[in-house]
Amino acid sequence: MRILGLDPGTATTGYGIIDVVEGEPSVVAYGVIRTEPQQAMAQRLQIIYRALCELLDEYRPDAAAIEEVFFGRNITTAITVGQARGVLLLALANAGVPIEEYSPPKIKDAVTGYGKADKHQVQLMVRNLLHLEETPRPDDAADGLAVALTHFQHQRYSSLLS
Amino acid sequence: MRILGLDPGTATTGYGIIDVVEGEPSVVAYGVIRTEPQQAMAQRLQIIYRALCELLDEYRPDAAAIEEVFFGRNITTAITVGQARGVLLLALANAGVPIEEYSPPKIKDAVTGYGKADKHQVQLMVRNLLHLEETPRPDDAADGLAVALTHFQHQRYSSLLS
Repeated sequence: MRILGLDPGTATTGYGIIDVVEGEPSVVAYGVIRTEPQQAMAQRLQIIYRALCELLDEYRPDAAAIEEVFFGRNITTAITVGQARGVLLLALANAGVPIEEYSPPKIKDAVTGYGKADKHQVQLMVRNLLHLEETPRPDDAADGLAVALTHFQHQRYSSLLS
Repeated sequence: MRILGLDPGTATTGYGIIDVVEGEPSVVAYGVIRTEPQQAMAQRLQIIYRALCELLDEYRPDAAAIEEVFFGRNITTAITVGQARGVLLLALANAGVPIEEYSPPKIKDAVTGYGKADKHQVQLMVRNLLHLEETPRPDDAADGLAVALTHFQHQRYSSLLS
């Protein structure tokens, strides 16, 4: 099973793709989709949408997981992150990829066992769980992998319970 | 010149299309794009995106105006409205339509001359300015026309000043 994890943002959307074979997750790809603040918002959303369409076309994930907007953020950030999430969800729907959403505390808990873990702890666990030699950079790419790992954990527990 | 006005929302996106001939605006079409709350968010965004693409294809506006998210709304609303705005902006960018954004007070001021006008006053002025026999229904469609009229007023003042 191939899982795509997304950490949405207008300036930087992080993504991480993992394969799960015999219950073991391994990394396929990770990175970021970047846009420039001097570009018009509609053009930035177009770049994000097209970049995700290309990733979906190249890697064909079986499932996608996306970070829920963190409610502690301010309202301006919420709107712009909402706009980026909108085009990401659209690209996933157009590609027919099933989508799950996870809150930041749920992601931290799934990856580190602690819902209030800091960024560094999350990155360290992403590295350990995926047996990587180095911590994935930039941070948003590591977050994308963390979201994918959260979905993997969630699926594993669901299948144990069913 | 043909102007499309949009009042974005996940449940209801209002739209209004006007033509401006010799400085006089007239209505071309108005209505709403609706989605059902029981549908998954990604499917709702897909419906909104496709509906706008069809409107753009049918009416081919020269310019689009979209309401800015009202900052007095709560953060959950901001995120969902942001998502709807995201796919609307994407559809406009894909169709190459130039986009202007207007805040709710600016829209009220442009249509009624008073930035704190209530919904009823806005609807009445939309009806008068467009010489309509009845107030456009539903409310969100009237708001879409108000956004289009705001862009018309803004363009007129800009051309007077240049």
